[in-house]
Amino acid sequence: MELDLSLPAAELTARLVDIESVSGNEQAIADAIAAALGGLPHLTLHRAGNVIVASTSLGRSERVVLAGHIDTVPVAGNLPAHLDGDLLYGCGSCDMKSGVAVQLRLAAQLTAAARDITYVFYDCEEVEAERNGLLRLSRTSPELLAGDFAVLMEPTAAAVEGGCQGTLRAEVRAGGERAHSARSWLGSNAIHAAGGILDVLRAYQPRQPVVDGLAYHEGLNAVGIRGGVAGNVIPDECVVSVNFRFAPDRSPEQAADHVRDTFAGFDVQVTDSASGARPGLSKPAAASFVAAMGGEPRAKLGWTDVARFDALGIPAVNYGPGDPTLAHRRDEHVPLAQIAECETRMLGWLAP
Amino acid sequence: MELDLSLPAAELTARLVDIESVSGNEQAIADAIAAALGGLPHLTLHRAGNVIVASTSLGRSERVVLAGHIDTVPVAGNLPAHLDGDLLYGCGSCDMKSGVAVQLRLAAQLTAAARDITYVFYDCEEVEAERNGLLRLSRTSPELLAGDFAVLMEPTAAAVEGGCQGTLRAEVRAGGERAHSARSWLGSNAIHAAGGILDVLRAYQPRQPVVDGLAYHEGLNAVGIRGGVAGNVIPDECVVSVNFRFAPDRSPEQAADHVRDTFAGFDVQVTDSASGARPGLSKPAAASFVAAMGGEPRAKLGWTDVARFDALGIPAVNYGPGDPTLAHRRDEHVPLAQIAECETRMLGWLAP
Repeated sequence: MELDLSLPAAELTARLVDIESVSGNEQAIADAIAAALGGLPHLTLHRAGNVIVASTSLGRSERVVLAGHIDTVPVAGNLPAHLDGDLLYGCGSCDMKSGVAVQLRLAAQLTAAARDITYVFYDCEEVEAERNGLLRLSRTSPELLAGDFAVLMEPTAAAVEGGCQGTLRAEVRAGGERAHSARSWLGSNAIHAAGGILDVLRAYQPRQPVVDGLAYHEGLNAVGIRGGVAGNVIPDECVVSVNFRFAPDRSPEQAADHVRDTFAGFDVQVTDSASGARPGLSKPAAASFVAAMGGEPRAKLGWTDVARFDALGIPAVNYGPGDPTLAHRRDEHVPLAQIAECETRMLGWLAP
Repeated sequence: MELDLSLPAAELTARLVDIESVSGNEQAIADAIAAALGGLPHLTLHRAGNVIVASTSLGRSERVVLAGHIDTVPVAGNLPAHLDGDLLYGCGSCDMKSGVAVQLRLAAQLTAAARDITYVFYDCEEVEAERNGLLRLSRTSPELLAGDFAVLMEPTAAAVEGGCQGTLRAEVRAGGERAHSARSWLGSNAIHAAGGILDVLRAYQPRQPVVDGLAYHEGLNAVGIRGGVAGNVIPDECVVSVNFRFAPDRSPEQAADHVRDTFAGFDVQVTDSASGARPGLSKPAAASFVAAMGGEPRAKLGWTDVARFDALGIPAVNYGPGDPTLAHRRDEHVPLAQIAECETRMLGWLAP
């Protein structure tokens, strides 16, 4: 499978969509990308597994990192790609092979850009964090990700979405004492006691703080509940799984403290967390990017891999073609016009 | 295996315990009981599967039914029977082979009792209701259970426990709307909404009505709760399983109406119910029984097979040796003195 980087980005997107690359099966698409970039003399290639890094070495005063994942969620009868009017349908069309196509188009055209550029293509973004190619690279070769600013080309409908919120999961437990339900007053019902946990959740007022000029919106929610021993037993344990989405002005540690304080009196076990990312739009590279892309930047509320750049001290934003709410859907699609707009604006920003 | 009904009841209990009869495996013990009773000229025997009915036909003005199940819960390393001081240990010693031993002793000795007597021995009490031998008999040959009064010889520590409470299970559902947990305000959290169900349960004031002179104690409890789609999804359904234990002055239909009224505004599905049984202690046979047994009768709060007699219009009580809270335990046991006391008092009541 050969990729012709002289094709328009929309057509290139369709070619990428047709190379099936469900997480764990990225070999073919990584081979095609490596082959296409390998022929370009202005780029230095690094490959580790199915992670590919291509960098310019122009000696510019700034370096930007453009990153995208090459895997998709499982195919849902939505391959190969097909056009319907000015919309391109197919698994990964929106999330995020259109963004990858823009990366590849920029890599081919920008032989001597105004800024040095590092293009990162990585695997296993759609699965558990431990398999994530960008995380792996940030641990094994963080120097390859060095830069003054990063753009993660996830779908944002071609708007700049700054930073991302963090996420934390915890199990909040209510206890009790077992008894036969025919003599319930001899025990203590843990499910009834969990009503106190739900009281806290129902009364919770989430913050909507402005961080670096962007308005975030936190949320604390039950995402699971379980309890019960048998149909004739007063249960002695009820566990509520909560998910706290927190603005990037809190660290995961501060978020955990907040959750523990919020559920004071209950047993709280934090099961996992991931820090958010500040938008950092006041940095020079970021400011020029926002100006070049046009429109009002907004806060990214979901968690994305921009947090991995933030962890390396690199300000990062989300920007790419495609409506993010269409991601992972069977009818996933992307407007051709957005792919072209992203390419044009990025070229304008990076052109010498 | 031959049963010698001239043995003292305690010794006979040990012999019965040693015939393993976990539900579904009652053939050997039923054979032994049928053989022992078959030789008694004052009894007419009826056998259907592992249900045995033995009746006197003395032409008395009253007939009493003495019933007991011959199966046990699974053996838990607690066979054969063994004595420790004046306690007899072993699977089924308490629930309820000591009661069955008393039945057999009465059947052997009372050749011309003051009342006609029907002895019922049945299988599969410890498993799902549909396999219950007494239920089967009440459907196929209710005339064999006819009588003015019934004693179910389940363990009550030799106290008279009148009637039984009914039980009803229902699923109470709270609904919502799914959304990504990063934008929770776009959805509606069903687990949070289930807080309203737990509010009702926490505020519920159970009745403690006096029925036919005995004080019952109702209870409405969550016995299970489940909800949740994934760790990043606002859930659209939460289901609370509730168990309502109701006094025998309510029918199952009235109990269901009460549960639906109590959870007005939520979706309520009744999944199963079983009616209770009024103690009926004012009936002449019952009154003479209570007087002969001594002590203050109390209400039976758990559900028992006395409800099956109540459904046939026969007042019934629970009375037998053994502490009911020891039933189903590995260290199940019965005091020898209680076995003897039950036999003596029953003989006194039924003697000519």
